[in-house]
Amino acid sequence: MIKANNYKVKLIKAETLIYKMSFFAGNKEIFIKRDDLIDFGIGGNKVRKLEYIMDDVVNSGAEKVITFGSLYSNHIRITASVADYMGYDCDVIILTDKEADKDQIEGNILLSLFHNANIYYCAIEEAKGFIDKHLNNQEKEGINYFFIPGGGHSPKAALGYVDAAKEINKQLVEMNETGIDAVFLPTGTGTTQAGLIYGFKQLNVPTKVMGISVSRSKSRCIREIKETLDGINAINYTNYMFNDDDIWVMETNEPYGSLSEDVYDIIQAVFSSDGLILDPIYNAQAFKIMMKVLNEDTSNIYNKVLYINTGGLPNFFTNLLSKGIRNYGKCTDN
Amino acid sequence: MIKANNYKVKLIKAETLIYKMSFFAGNKEIFIKRDDLIDFGIGGNKVRKLEYIMDDVVNSGAEKVITFGSLYSNHIRITASVADYMGYDCDVIILTDKEADKDQIEGNILLSLFHNANIYYCAIEEAKGFIDKHLNNQEKEGINYFFIPGGGHSPKAALGYVDAAKEINKQLVEMNETGIDAVFLPTGTGTTQAGLIYGFKQLNVPTKVMGISVSRSKSRCIREIKETLDGINAINYTNYMFNDDDIWVMETNEPYGSLSEDVYDIIQAVFSSDGLILDPIYNAQAFKIMMKVLNEDTSNIYNKVLYINTGGLPNFFTNLLSKGIRNYGKCTDN
Repeated sequence: MIKANNYKVKLIKAETLIYKMSFFAGNKEIFIKRDDLIDFGIGGNKVRKLEYIMDDVVNSGAEKVITFGSLYSNHIRITASVADYMGYDCDVIILTDKEADKDQIEGNILLSLFHNANIYYCAIEEAKGFIDKHLNNQEKEGINYFFIPGGGHSPKAALGYVDAAKEINKQLVEMNETGIDAVFLPTGTGTTQAGLIYGFKQLNVPTKVMGISVSRSKSRCIREIKETLDGINAINYTNYMFNDDDIWVMETNEPYGSLSEDVYDIIQAVFSSDGLILDPIYNAQAFKIMMKVLNEDTSNIYNKVLYINTGGLPNFFTNLLSKGIRNYGKCTDN
Repeated sequence: MIKANNYKVKLIKAETLIYKMSFFAGNKEIFIKRDDLIDFGIGGNKVRKLEYIMDDVVNSGAEKVITFGSLYSNHIRITASVADYMGYDCDVIILTDKEADKDQIEGNILLSLFHNANIYYCAIEEAKGFIDKHLNNQEKEGINYFFIPGGGHSPKAALGYVDAAKEINKQLVEMNETGIDAVFLPTGTGTTQAGLIYGFKQLNVPTKVMGISVSRSKSRCIREIKETLDGINAINYTNYMFNDDDIWVMETNEPYGSLSEDVYDIIQAVFSSDGLILDPIYNAQAFKIMMKVLNEDTSNIYNKVLYINTGGLPNFFTNLLSKGIRNYGKCTDN
């Protein structure tokens, strides 16, 4: 008998909110899905992925999970927190070229350390060699580990957003708000986007999924999303066809991990209109591009859209943001 | 005609989750109310209070709100964020005796600056004079301001938790989980606790409300809670009687703003069992005392309790916590 490979470990207790934003976009309607409020840890899209990844970890019999990511990676934090919660050791390898980054115990790194993860640092160009050696060392020491790719990138992980597409569709039907023209979200490795594309295809809902790549080239994202879609088909024994028209990726024009005036402005503007905070690394970047698309959409292709806030609040509490604060030092004593 | 004084500005979109915790407490059941996940700003109990306070601000015709609090005050942050959201200027006076605190742009201070609040610092023992002079200066400059007491402490603000008591009761009935023996929560100025006591009295639900004071003496808390209860009666034209048996306050045995080994342990233990993070200043302290009460309750008075997580996540992202991190610096390169 073929063993099903689409089980998950339950970490999330409740659906996340969807509602219509007040943010001004001409005559267009913007809805938001608050995956930043996922009720495990500090929330965010990575929790949905880890629910599936951890099923593989449990089945592997491993005692330790090992993963890697950037200084601002939400994936490394959620991995550390889920490992802590489920009783696994956890090694996190941070890729950074800046020596000073090693002293920045803040945001996702602070949380990962709190979760007792072991943090290692390596230069970006040495990543492959460093990770290979690290895994080799585990084998030499007889440690049974499970390696999770950066960003939690895998077809199995993408099932978390196949489920999310169903949750979104169900909620929109309940709200009598079907007919969403496009879903916008920040795209890193493409796993979240692939899950949504597959999920809406399976539901036969003609919603475009528009990923805004915050770090990689459009072509690389599209290639990896295609591979992930093939992988989901394989897990689910399905044969959905995906063509170029199913996979939409735009690039931000900002370097990953930077905080421009424009992006700071969008965080403030979204807070002023809707009372919610977008993280500076992923969501503020993606929201900015979505607004550009909507403002340029004179032929009214996107009249009703849904933005997925994928979380990442710890990145707000970093030097990156505090250095950008405009109001600092303005006041004097009476 | 008498103008009703119990209106509020709507900031919160949805009820917050209640569920049963996994945390081990012998044969006792612990439920948790996730007010940390309130969907405005970064959540927390202060949002419920500000909904009511801002009604007074709107009616006052003020152009600016002014408040004060400690370095770790969640109230100052929520005030700054609500002021930003609703288009008011905001002055925040931080009471601290440590010169070095002025350089700590983190947690709630970071967020308040992001929300364009003007931050002033003054020594604790000079607070009254400083605040008086600051308000005087506003008058001299012709600025129409609204002064919000520290912690948002007022009967009007307490109405937020009268509503919360109703929300809790409704949810517990829906869950078929009535018969809660006690509600535990951290108590600062006593406003949240007073609102809950009044709310349960009004509902005729015999749930004890147990406040754990994180900063003030038990006697001061009880006195201020009594005054607040009188104030709520006045606003609502009611005459509920409250006696000593209605007002339960315990003190933590830790200095405000400290992070002991015990408290760090409880944050880790609650995360391991339930995947949620308690803030180090208020909730971890209160949860610790609740566990002490439950462990010592051999006569089984408290078999089913509800803990209210009042939020305060920004305090996790501070030097206080990063200095306490045990795992830091443990790893070396391969």
